[in-house]
Amino acid sequence: MANETAITPTRDQDYPEWYQQVIKAADLAENSAVRGCMVIKPWGYGIWERIQAELDQRFKATGHENAYFPLLIPLSFLEKEAAHVSGFAKECAVVTHHRLVERDGKLVPEGELEEPLIIRPTSETIIGDSFSRWVQSYRDLPVLINQWCNVMRWEMRTRMFLRTAEFLWQEGHTCHATAQEAMDETKTMLEVYREFCENILAVPVITGEKPHHERFPGAVTTYCVEAMMQDKKALQAGTSHYLGQNFANASNIKFLNEKGEIEFAHTTSWGVSTRLIGGLIMTHSDDDGLRLPPKVAPKHVVILPVVPKPETQSEVFAYCEKIAKELRSLSFDGIPVQVTIDKRDIRGGDKSWSWIKKGIPVRIEIGPRDIAQDSCMLYRRDRGPREKQPTSIADLKASLPETLLAIQRSLYAQALAYRDQSITTSVKTLEEFKQFFANPQAGFVKAHWCEEVESLIALDEFKVTVRCAPLNENETQGTCVLTGKPATKQYYFGRSY
Amino acid sequence: MANETAITPTRDQDYPEWYQQVIKAADLAENSAVRGCMVIKPWGYGIWERIQAELDQRFKATGHENAYFPLLIPLSFLEKEAAHVSGFAKECAVVTHHRLVERDGKLVPEGELEEPLIIRPTSETIIGDSFSRWVQSYRDLPVLINQWCNVMRWEMRTRMFLRTAEFLWQEGHTCHATAQEAMDETKTMLEVYREFCENILAVPVITGEKPHHERFPGAVTTYCVEAMMQDKKALQAGTSHYLGQNFANASNIKFLNEKGEIEFAHTTSWGVSTRLIGGLIMTHSDDDGLRLPPKVAPKHVVILPVVPKPETQSEVFAYCEKIAKELRSLSFDGIPVQVTIDKRDIRGGDKSWSWIKKGIPVRIEIGPRDIAQDSCMLYRRDRGPREKQPTSIADLKASLPETLLAIQRSLYAQALAYRDQSITTSVKTLEEFKQFFANPQAGFVKAHWCEEVESLIALDEFKVTVRCAPLNENETQGTCVLTGKPATKQYYFGRSY
Repeated sequence: MANETAITPTRDQDYPEWYQQVIKAADLAENSAVRGCMVIKPWGYGIWERIQAELDQRFKATGHENAYFPLLIPLSFLEKEAAHVSGFAKECAVVTHHRLVERDGKLVPEGELEEPLIIRPTSETIIGDSFSRWVQSYRDLPVLINQWCNVMRWEMRTRMFLRTAEFLWQEGHTCHATAQEAMDETKTMLEVYREFCENILAVPVITGEKPHHERFPGAVTTYCVEAMMQDKKALQAGTSHYLGQNFANASNIKFLNEKGEIEFAHTTSWGVSTRLIGGLIMTHSDDDGLRLPPKVAPKHVVILPVVPKPETQSEVFAYCEKIAKELRSLSFDGIPVQVTIDKRDIRGGDKSWSWIKKGIPVRIEIGPRDIAQDSCMLYRRDRGPREKQPTSIADLKASLPETLLAIQRSLYAQALAYRDQSITTSVKTLEEFKQFFANPQAGFVKAHWCEEVESLIALDEFKVTVRCAPLNENETQGTCVLTGKPATKQYYFGRSY
Repeated sequence: MANETAITPTRDQDYPEWYQQVIKAADLAENSAVRGCMVIKPWGYGIWERIQAELDQRFKATGHENAYFPLLIPLSFLEKEAAHVSGFAKECAVVTHHRLVERDGKLVPEGELEEPLIIRPTSETIIGDSFSRWVQSYRDLPVLINQWCNVMRWEMRTRMFLRTAEFLWQEGHTCHATAQEAMDETKTMLEVYREFCENILAVPVITGEKPHHERFPGAVTTYCVEAMMQDKKALQAGTSHYLGQNFANASNIKFLNEKGEIEFAHTTSWGVSTRLIGGLIMTHSDDDGLRLPPKVAPKHVVILPVVPKPETQSEVFAYCEKIAKELRSLSFDGIPVQVTIDKRDIRGGDKSWSWIKKGIPVRIEIGPRDIAQDSCMLYRRDRGPREKQPTSIADLKASLPETLLAIQRSLYAQALAYRDQSITTSVKTLEEFKQFFANPQAGFVKAHWCEEVESLIALDEFKVTVRCAPLNENETQGTCVLTGKPATKQYYFGRSY
């Protein structure tokens, strides 16, 4: 594999196929026999567990509690919010029967339900039903709830992690006494997502407001965090919705305010999903496979015992166990260092490459000669696959936490530089806009837009969409890049997942 | 509330209704608009999070990894194992359509699926499909997987936590090269459940083997942990199944063994669910509501500020915050102490009783006079609601971990004593058996049984079932209590949930 890459094709050759091959090579997930539904394998699920742990801690620190609501939603609930139902009716799994019987040697559905039920595509309506019981007085507010669960949206074109019929996510749902409090909550959770994406996933994101035609069905305002992948497409990584009183109206969530008057509550919802793993893969991986920022990696270090002769095996394994135990007592930024020893009886090269492809941050080789010198060979995944670093065991123990933090910083810095050099603010006219997006890997345009949906027709042929109006660094006065009309806000434009 | 109890009715008056009222008073869960599906509220879900954290740690320590498999299962998968399908077909939710359209102002299902899908009642068949791809050689074995997820069984008679149409659980699924290894795994996980139930939930359990007619559909052997509730009924708290090669055959899980021959793998599965919370409630609660063993409590200590005059509030609150912060730095048996301060503006009595009913292990009252003396009033939930203990803050900090451990031990000891005095080994004949179970709250009989299913007809009128043959302390030679025939194993008999 001298000058070859571990992943074929490379990013340049065929980006979508490269993505699938990285997932396969890192053993993250596989397609299942059920259309559009994937199996998340242990290494992929380990990443999700890290995401859950980090987010859950942040949700609790901001006052939220977890709860669990039914998987199935009555049709009558969905119908309560008109925009909501039209947004989700086209792609939901419908349960119509509650048993199977054998007929002519074949299992067929029986016991038709009086009212069909849908598998939750999101839970505003079923959670709203509970909130209508929980909230009676201003003393009951705010209600700050989060749910970790599976949801289904019957997507026609699916892609592992990015768009699957079933996915795992968290959905926050909150209820407030005033519009201001609900808006503050919406923005607080957007900021939680930004900080998490940048500090844990090492994925730089733009925080912004979605254009009005791309709001969550039923929302007053939708905020988002948007990331840029290595093919320069945008990925919406998370959303936070200010729902006004729309869902409170639909679900009848009312309370007696301090003046003794009955009011509808103000609600929010916010969510991120296993899609984040797709974004993580496409932000950091290279042509040798996955690269994991240490803070989201299920394991940080693999020790690869080098056993030149069978009779040295027990000594090498015992030494590796000792080093593993010592490294496991370390932590970085409060995260305990996770160490594994790969004792498989396979060729050393295959073994190393399997961990390179899995993206583990640090590999350590230890053989009899290293043991004699109390040293090891260290490899960092953010450097070339053959770039080795002889290290004494004493130095390894002293520097490992800082090495992991350095890898975290270096992956973030690379992603940030890549993104920032792929954003232009110099596109000012429709002509320039079209020239820019004639390139299939163009990046983002940041420009003023008049917010008229009809003006977007010009973008269709380029498959470009308005991503969001950034909350920070947004110039108020300008000229719409599409129509030349006066405009008061800048937006990001780009192709997207 | 001088001589009254906080829960009406009491256990003696109406046990099933008492159970519902304890759930309501502790704010653990509520019924939803979807038949048989409950909402798990934050205090109930907090208990589930503790259960998950403790079990997950044990599963990982025994070599298992988490993964995630599809919610929906094709009918053709279910049909592969004959006993399995007949066990689950009668109670499964069937998805038949993948969208909704409006017709005559009403939403109706559209887009009929070619093959209906069922919502997983358990995942042997869909996980087996993945295992058939993952397992090729003996080098791939063992495969040790666990999944945390929701499942559905369309039960006709439901009861919160104990039997619900949807419930949360974990399901372990493993694959081994030999029958012995699979059997060892089955028993290892049974032991994990026993240790967890006894040490964390403080629920004493009998580990046993299910009678052959009560095995998991498709299993060769089913082991279980059985607990006794305060109405002396049995609750099956968890099961561990040795599946032999039945499911490997059905799902085509084959491997090349060390001799180069192709063999079917040997598999196991094991699970516990939110039903454990039902068992926890019915083991420990009293006529004042829930009592939580500290190791499974979402919070261990509530501080109740006593504010006799409004002008003292800020001082009292500040002092309580200071004490809370100090207590939060403590831990017991590796579990960080969780402290909450209840600052609600409601009557002190109502506030105290709300926490008694929630079962929090320790309540601490702090008012201006306590602050003057650096002391507080401490109440333990395993003692009478008014049994108070004046404690200096220094003593509180020094003794809180041990106090929590003492409460844990005392709840276990009470439950163990109650159970053991409700088991008899002196019933030797059918006549004695009938006399014993004429009492609606009889307890368990441990006696020899000939294992003939027909002999159980005599038990029907008493609604008694064979629970399990205990793995420990089982006499091999004896006479069947039902038929008088020679028998080689003792079983527990009892009414059950």
